[in-house]
Amino acid sequence: MNDKMIFHQLFEKETSTYTYLLADSDTKEAVLIDPVIEMADRDVKLVADLGLKLKYILDTHVHADHITASGEIRKRTGAKVGLSSAYDMACPDLHLEDGQELSFGKYILKVIHTPGHTSGCLSYQVENMLFTGDALLVRGCGRTDFQEGSAEKLFHSVRDKIFNLPDDTIVYPGHDYKGFTKTSIDLEKRLNPRLKLEMNKEQFMEIMSNLKLAYPKKIQEAVPANLQVVYH
Amino acid sequence: MNDKMIFHQLFEKETSTYTYLLADSDTKEAVLIDPVIEMADRDVKLVADLGLKLKYILDTHVHADHITASGEIRKRTGAKVGLSSAYDMACPDLHLEDGQELSFGKYILKVIHTPGHTSGCLSYQVENMLFTGDALLVRGCGRTDFQEGSAEKLFHSVRDKIFNLPDDTIVYPGHDYKGFTKTSIDLEKRLNPRLKLEMNKEQFMEIMSNLKLAYPKKIQEAVPANLQVVYH
Repeated sequence: MNDKMIFHQLFEKETSTYTYLLADSDTKEAVLIDPVIEMADRDVKLVADLGLKLKYILDTHVHADHITASGEIRKRTGAKVGLSSAYDMACPDLHLEDGQELSFGKYILKVIHTPGHTSGCLSYQVENMLFTGDALLVRGCGRTDFQEGSAEKLFHSVRDKIFNLPDDTIVYPGHDYKGFTKTSIDLEKRLNPRLKLEMNKEQFMEIMSNLKLAYPKKIQEAVPANLQVVYH
Repeated sequence: MNDKMIFHQLFEKETSTYTYLLADSDTKEAVLIDPVIEMADRDVKLVADLGLKLKYILDTHVHADHITASGEIRKRTGAKVGLSSAYDMACPDLHLEDGQELSFGKYILKVIHTPGHTSGCLSYQVENMLFTGDALLVRGCGRTDFQEGSAEKLFHSVRDKIFNLPDDTIVYPGHDYKGFTKTSIDLEKRLNPRLKLEMNKEQFMEIMSNLKLAYPKKIQEAVPANLQVVYH
């Protein structure tokens, strides 16, 4: 990370969701990743307190466990909302594609399509940091049993795309439920019980098909809202 | 922060407590600050997963809201427990004094006595990072109404000691209840509603005497445990 980059990791306790604010300390242009509706006031105030100009609000994916604050913060700041072009949605300002680059100040944010948790999951790379949403979590990964999830696709996203980045890339997840705040490519290659290098695709798919997870409490509310309502 | 330093910020959700693990990536010597008893397994596993040798476990103070994992992790790792000499306790291995320095690998951790929340509160400085416990929080500070707390002492600790450090020092708090993970000396000088530079001591003491906070839920259990039992 460049010493001059402004960087804040923020947490929402009820759904254990991480939000990230990145900005150029010279131009003050900023990007907000995965804001949560209940924390919109906190995030808008932080942007103002730091004297930043919010340029982009990017969701890593259409969330099933919480409602995004993207629409609300767009209203208050005029920033553009970005989301994957893989979703059939009219409401984002930017329909992001794999390989696309966005700039804020002197920094480039690179879009990497990492489907599997949902069809339109994106990871965002800035310098040596990677924001993985629910594709790769600390010693885990997102579930693959709804929203066009696919264990096979997720395996390829992590192993063929994310793990091809430099080992010292810092991975900032979309959630953590045990209080971890980050990990690295190197650590996940060695320690992720589902996706470490010694696991093969069949083993991973077997694990993912046997998780027996309850549906997210808010899914009936969150997915429709995140697909439509909050952006209007 | 040196690129080679290993650094992990860890969170405990029930009491919103931060624990910090720092280590030299060459020698693997590590320091753990403010571990929480419920997360001892996580922390010991992380130390092992990273191949670290835990040298010191340091509490910033005798906590009133949670039980420290210092005693438990000392048993499992053989690390030495450090706490302020201001408390009348026989159980720590190190009775730390203002200005004392501890080394782990090529790094120096400097002890700064910052009383006010309790009589024995310490802040720990490593490179451009400061671990403030409950002395200085993000846009706030610890309460001063028990455990020999003193608003006057806390004002001087923050304004005369902590705020004398370089403005770009990153402040890592002992808790945060709104999902912030860090702040800086510069931000707190400008934005802390109680302690920013435009506030004077009388204003601060007036605020602190009118907080009307409920006692911490676990204080009857936590303080005696942290003073004695868990270290034996």
